[in-house]
Amino acid sequence: MLTLYDFAPSGNGYKVRLVLAQLGRPFRRIEVDLLAGATRTADFLAINPDGRIPVLVLEDGTALAESNAICWYLAEGSPLLPDDPLERAQVLRWMFFEQYSHEPNIAVLRFWHHLPAMTPLQQAQEPERRAKGEAALAVMQTHLVARDWFVGDRPSLADIALYAYTHVAEEGGFDLAGYPAVAAWLARVAALPGHFPITDPIGLDAAAPAAGAH
Amino acid sequence: MLTLYDFAPSGNGYKVRLVLAQLGRPFRRIEVDLLAGATRTADFLAINPDGRIPVLVLEDGTALAESNAICWYLAEGSPLLPDDPLERAQVLRWMFFEQYSHEPNIAVLRFWHHLPAMTPLQQAQEPERRAKGEAALAVMQTHLVARDWFVGDRPSLADIALYAYTHVAEEGGFDLAGYPAVAAWLARVAALPGHFPITDPIGLDAAAPAAGAH
Repeated sequence: MLTLYDFAPSGNGYKVRLVLAQLGRPFRRIEVDLLAGATRTADFLAINPDGRIPVLVLEDGTALAESNAICWYLAEGSPLLPDDPLERAQVLRWMFFEQYSHEPNIAVLRFWHHLPAMTPLQQAQEPERRAKGEAALAVMQTHLVARDWFVGDRPSLADIALYAYTHVAEEGGFDLAGYPAVAAWLARVAALPGHFPITDPIGLDAAAPAAGAH
Repeated sequence: MLTLYDFAPSGNGYKVRLVLAQLGRPFRRIEVDLLAGATRTADFLAINPDGRIPVLVLEDGTALAESNAICWYLAEGSPLLPDDPLERAQVLRWMFFEQYSHEPNIAVLRFWHHLPAMTPLQQAQEPERRAKGEAALAVMQTHLVARDWFVGDRPSLADIALYAYTHVAEEGGFDLAGYPAVAAWLARVAALPGHFPITDPIGLDAAAPAAGAH
């Protein structure tokens, strides 16, 4: 069975849970509490030397890191990945945008806002990260004004990747009221069959009976 | 003909130039001086609302952004992309690592070191970015100790993507002497047929006779 090394509050982990659930793939989930340093132990670094979750471990023991690479591997041959080479490249374009322009700002501010207190360096960086996060939301708004989905005429991995941290952007102090096309797209993604929110136990336990086992 | 919106000192642009040259694809190159604000003009934002180079514009006018998505699109069906689904996912794994853990630290410090002076906020962030850049190099070193190439037994897009900013890491103050497997791998990439360094005019002009035209 597939094993997912994961951390419940992580949007990067949630992306993979969503894809696994939408594809109906059973998996064993292992919680790795990164706040307690569990991604930096020798045991975990042997699985992923980069010290990050999520990591998918295949039946043969091969470890695959990076949320969007895991999603791509799982979704190959499914409706979540288009067949057309250019549409596939556009899916990747949005997934790289997500990791470069969106996550380091929108997800990181969400994380910082959940900390008991920000460090002085985090406080100093916040305005720039907020401006870059707003810029990423503006790019999404511009793209979605005349489209239902990020690539082509149906939902794809691009939508799942960008949904993960956008739908909890308000936890980092971002107000989506200024991005109505983004808000409408979030509602479309949330209405897809098999969808569940990041906090829902379906993704954490019901779909993964052995959750927490180790 | 393909049109590449590019900026000569950019490692992200250089990746695409290398792939185009190795595949023997002719292209027109348009220099976009991002230091002079040329990626933030209305004309350029109409091509890429995210305001970044590189952008590849296809014969039919379709614009594709994000260096690694462009490389993937170009390399499909070539020896630079393996056929095996898991190896393809591992190529993506390293390309996402490059954009998330490597470029924002190693490329950004190179950029900051080329500025006339760093801002106080940049100075405050430098130690953290340096530590993260060293961590990325350490991950590469660990991976390359027993391997010639990042994925499988031959060079792939993973090597090109990671080569781009690693081979100029010293411009950002990183010393590769501590990463001998990385240094040996850099030499292997540089010895590949069709290779040229980031500063070589082959990638900028000889392979693109209309370079700079607009």
